[in-house]
Amino acid sequence: MRMFRNDYSEGAAPEVLDALVTTNYEQHPGYTEGDAHCTRAIELIRAACGRPDATVEFAIGGTSTNLVCVNGLLRDWEGVICTPDAHINAHETGAVAATGRSVLPTRDTDGFVSPAEAERVYRYQTGTGRHMTRPAMVYISNTTELGGVWSLERFDALCDWADAHELPVYVDGARMASALVSPAAEGLTLEHIAARAGAFYLGGTKNGALFGEAVVINDDRLREAFPYLIKERGGLMAKGRLLGVQFEALFDGGALGSADEAPFWKLARNANERAFELRDALVGLGFSPYGTCPSNQQFFAMESAVAERFVDECGAEVFQELPDDRLLTRLVCSWATSEEDVAELIAFARTL
Amino acid sequence: MRMFRNDYSEGAAPEVLDALVTTNYEQHPGYTEGDAHCTRAIELIRAACGRPDATVEFAIGGTSTNLVCVNGLLRDWEGVICTPDAHINAHETGAVAATGRSVLPTRDTDGFVSPAEAERVYRYQTGTGRHMTRPAMVYISNTTELGGVWSLERFDALCDWADAHELPVYVDGARMASALVSPAAEGLTLEHIAARAGAFYLGGTKNGALFGEAVVINDDRLREAFPYLIKERGGLMAKGRLLGVQFEALFDGGALGSADEAPFWKLARNANERAFELRDALVGLGFSPYGTCPSNQQFFAMESAVAERFVDECGAEVFQELPDDRLLTRLVCSWATSEEDVAELIAFARTL
Amino acid sequence: MRMFRNDYSEGAAPEVLDALVTTNYEQHPGYTEGDAHCTRAIELIRAACGRPDATVEFAIGGTSTNLVCVNGLLRDWEGVICTPDAHINAHETGAVAATGRSVLPTRDTDGFVSPAEAERVYRYQTGTGRHMTRPAMVYISNTTELGGVWSLERFDALCDWADAHELPVYVDGARMASALVSPAAEGLTLEHIAARAGAFYLGGTKNGALFGEAVVINDDRLREAFPYLIKERGGLMAKGRLLGVQFEALFDGGALGSADEAPFWKLARNANERAFELRDALVGLGFSPYGTCPSNQQFFAMESAVAERFVDECGAEVFQELPDDRLLTRLVCSWATSEEDVAELIAFARTL
Amino acid sequence: MRMFRNDYSEGAAPEVLDALVTTNYEQHPGYTEGDAHCTRAIELIRAACGRPDATVEFAIGGTSTNLVCVNGLLRDWEGVICTPDAHINAHETGAVAATGRSVLPTRDTDGFVSPAEAERVYRYQTGTGRHMTRPAMVYISNTTELGGVWSLERFDALCDWADAHELPVYVDGARMASALVSPAAEGLTLEHIAARAGAFYLGGTKNGALFGEAVVINDDRLREAFPYLIKERGGLMAKGRLLGVQFEALFDGGALGSADEAPFWKLARNANERAFELRDALVGLGFSPYGTCPSNQQFFAMESAVAERFVDECGAEVFQELPDDRLLTRLVCSWATSEEDVAELIAFARTL
Repeated sequence: MRMFRNDYSEGAAPEVLDALVTTNYEQHPGYTEGDAHCTRAIELIRAACGRPDATVEFAIGGTSTNLVCVNGLLRDWEGVICTPDAHINAHETGAVAATGRSVLPTRDTDGFVSPAEAERVYRYQTGTGRHMTRPAMVYISNTTELGGVWSLERFDALCDWADAHELPVYVDGARMASALVSPAAEGLTLEHIAARAGAFYLGGTKNGALFGEAVVINDDRLREAFPYLIKERGGLMAKGRLLGVQFEALFDGGALGSADEAPFWKLARNANERAFELRDALVGLGFSPYGTCPSNQQFFAMESAVAERFVDECGAEVFQELPDDRLLTRLVCSWATSEEDVAELIAFARTL
Repeated sequence: MRMFRNDYSEGAAPEVLDALVTTNYEQHPGYTEGDAHCTRAIELIRAACGRPDATVEFAIGGTSTNLVCVNGLLRDWEGVICTPDAHINAHETGAVAATGRSVLPTRDTDGFVSPAEAERVYRYQTGTGRHMTRPAMVYISNTTELGGVWSLERFDALCDWADAHELPVYVDGARMASALVSPAAEGLTLEHIAARAGAFYLGGTKNGALFGEAVVINDDRLREAFPYLIKERGGLMAKGRLLGVQFEALFDGGALGSADEAPFWKLARNANERAFELRDALVGLGFSPYGTCPSNQQFFAMESAVAERFVDECGAEVFQELPDDRLLTRLVCSWATSEEDVAELIAFARTL
Repeated sequence: MRMFRNDYSEGAAPEVLDALVTTNYEQHPGYTEGDAHCTRAIELIRAACGRPDATVEFAIGGTSTNLVCVNGLLRDWEGVICTPDAHINAHETGAVAATGRSVLPTRDTDGFVSPAEAERVYRYQTGTGRHMTRPAMVYISNTTELGGVWSLERFDALCDWADAHELPVYVDGARMASALVSPAAEGLTLEHIAARAGAFYLGGTKNGALFGEAVVINDDRLREAFPYLIKERGGLMAKGRLLGVQFEALFDGGALGSADEAPFWKLARNANERAFELRDALVGLGFSPYGTCPSNQQFFAMESAVAERFVDECGAEVFQELPDDRLLTRLVCSWATSEEDVAELIAFARTL
Repeated sequence: MRMFRNDYSEGAAPEVLDALVTTNYEQHPGYTEGDAHCTRAIELIRAACGRPDATVEFAIGGTSTNLVCVNGLLRDWEGVICTPDAHINAHETGAVAATGRSVLPTRDTDGFVSPAEAERVYRYQTGTGRHMTRPAMVYISNTTELGGVWSLERFDALCDWADAHELPVYVDGARMASALVSPAAEGLTLEHIAARAGAFYLGGTKNGALFGEAVVINDDRLREAFPYLIKERGGLMAKGRLLGVQFEALFDGGALGSADEAPFWKLARNANERAFELRDALVGLGFSPYGTCPSNQQFFAMESAVAERFVDECGAEVFQELPDDRLLTRLVCSWATSEEDVAELIAFARTL
């Protein structure tokens, strides 16, 4: 059976792989600087964002992108507000601290930074002046760590709070495509994020690229810092055109929801649709979903014996023990998951 | 009226000031290296600790000491377990992150790291291998942020846990003297701390020195790192003998509890005794102490109007708003507080 | 005409590209951890090095590899001895300092660290104890910045010096294959480097991979640090198998010089042979080579008008102005350069 | 005999010590924030600088001041131009790199950054864009490492160059008083430095304070950063008033050259005058001065046997071996050196 372990188990989506093969013998200057594919990819992304003058940069992976952006948005004594389960707080081996910045977690438990908690952290941190790390940006991810999707209303409420404190909002978009094609986006669009966020990235690694993320920057400080930091932190690719070629392929097509949707949206749509099929079938079989599961990652609360069967059979990952001793278990669909794969997993689930 | 704002409002205790004046025209080599006063201070501290072979170093202040010690005990990808209100987490402007290390707070709310919470953090952080910061030391302070005092039993329980995980315990001793002369120490002695801690410091700044902390090191990694890091981080004094002269004066005398107690203990004993007089009188007047107030910092829950009067009259500091809307208000006694000062404050309290 | 700008102008060599395409739909765990291709690539590299127990890790590019290795080999107050023109000193935007370590350049002007200059720097830096950065490793690159190749004798002389001071030697092997297949290696083999260096890497990016470097580690401190640092510094790939697949393809074959040489050697051999054809032809035409040009990068001293023609025609890069006002101009051959490409460039040169 | 080892062998000058004793029992708020002595010291320094609106901050020692200022003036990927023998390059254990910034040494061998060398470094570092550390400030010290004194003409030439590149000039003034009272200043005044430098400090440690430096800041970025960085880097004193008290004492008096010169100038004048007496006498005895020795540090080229006698007798320090095998030997006078001390050393020199 195919694994449902994560959305980076395979190589690249066919559109991306073909583009890499087709362009393989072309010669290009290095470092994403001035090659035709990077140039065109930047144009396509600007168009998709509705911001012809936004700065678009490329990076190799999520941790690298996050550390460069946090590093560029913050000064040495500043910190980033985020949820306790944020990737930068919990899963990147202290990468933010490694560049001398502080992570300032709220107490939000649902993966979304709330204005109320952001305000509490902000007040606490600024209460004694220079004796505490000054909050200077907000980090969110879309989708969240547990697959949650930001709605327009929720996103605007946070941006309103952040604007009032003059803090840029940075969106980790490792799974941005899955979030934006989800019904749970409730009106939140790429254009809207591009209009309000200080910076964000469009994740390729988990949406059909071999690797790579495209970073969209509105914030002036980060705009100036990024080219230097990406090199200094070891994230600048010699064969930069690989990033251009891949994002050109991903964004070569129509807007989200159009008849000829670009692969970036189509691939995520497949991941979500397979995930929803799986969710609906498992729920029908009596499994307990954890939340509404609105994106390509599906979380279920399972008895440990059952969870183990999924781990063995399809590479499911156990995230944590729940208060009732059940295990929070994750199943992930990707651009590569087929209807047959899902059917096979459902058939297996039926036997449990 | 004298301020009860903190224990670093005055200059130096007379014993220390006299020593500085007396030795002023002596010539000594710099950097605490080999001058007679540093040498003798080191011998006196080793004797007080019962560890003739311990490494003793000097530093200028608490933040500098903490950052050098945390920096020397941890490698780049490692973190320090501490309480959420720990000085290194809350009040040092991200100094630990500034050197690339991570702070890993427990959920302990009483200022003491508990083995259970330390274990929870340890398991969580080591659950996904290299994707998370590895816990590699425990930070505690004695007294704690809210004036708590470690008992022998509590200290041993934590050290047992830490030993089982091979993690050094580091004790921030900004107010170590106040903690050890307190009845709440319940058997915890300097010798015992010196036998079990990886490193700790004996605070001078808040106990009668103009400035300065003496660091006692058992841990080999820190022993090698300290001399370089204290210079690299800007904490090495040119006139190093100032630290020797002061600690020589502070430790020139008998052991804690002996008839001729050294000033280090006598000065803290005065601070505690004045604080206990104040506590007992205020309690008698109906004020609500916050906990048992076993050291030189006294915390009371006050109506805000009352708290304000103390702020205006004697420099009391408001720490936080309590759930019942009262304000957690701090009054501090020091080596310089006299019985008359306390009587005057009590007389004032009586008028409220 | 094909560019002779550098050895990372194209995508991947056919052997590597085929392997990526063939394995594209396989599912593998992430992060280079335990997938079949990484496992086999590690075995092949260990065998090529003659060190069945060496640690082999993977990284995305040269700067990332260098910063992680320097970071892992040095403590906060330590520094790395290297030539002034070393990549880590001159071309990585302060990446070493960005992780808090110091670069300690010698005065060697030929790209090779000499024992005499290393000794001078070592003595100078250790002369005043902790007041100076302590030298704790030596960085060399093979080939050097200007295409030089380490001979066995020269390498052993430096290693002897380093061993006497207990300093690990780290070899930046961005172009290691070109160096080792060069006649100028004069007996220096991969096995020998693997026996004496603390760590080194085998460069894929400039020798036929899309991207990627394989790091071979003997040093215990780095061995423990690498897995954490590569994640913390943003260099760990989610789709780690891409590195395994590529290095498996590059090392799938016989030893250097054998009848069925692995692509890693064959590709470099093509680059060198084309470069030597070019060198010999240009020398025959009266051009002035800069040194003996023993590897795939060829440096010539050219009048500026001539240099400009090469820049325009084939992407030649001008490195610096020479004392006689001529320009040091670089022409690079790669795995992708054909005899026809070289012939075309020679024909062009003939017209000048 | 008194040592001539350095200018921080003794404690404090009488004016400073008296002020510390007199104010010892006053109570003041901490951290240099708002106490009467810091406030007055700031006013006195602003007046001496002729800049009523300059920001004045305090720090404990030279390394701490330098690292905070360099850190605040530079962003992560930027570097500081200085001479190879600059204190920040050679004698502070990598403190600049420890905060992630790069030191970019010129090839000036006389301790003064020349515009020509600064230009060469600037061009080199900006030649390949983001691949190299961007030069973003200039560090000089007055006096220089070997006791040199900046003249008005030389200082203006460098500032003109720096202004043209929009780089702030930072002046390490550990021995600024000795420099400014020297005839070699040739018109360079405190007011002039305060008008042109981005920031500089007035050294107390080596000119009669127990410890402490006063930092004058014109640069906006540093002005905002300093309060946070000084805390984050461990350099903020709890008993901040100690710095205020000392600098108030040092600047309580008339301008340089006036009848009632403030101690800051008078103390330095004594150091210089004693040093010049010593220089003139030794030259008269046939000793070889190294340069013109225009400040309180006197350097002589001595046969090694002779140098050793000075080392043993008066703590002279040997700096380096000169090309002719003689030793560069330093003798230092301070505020505490008396005419009798100098006479005694001259008498000794006569016996050699």
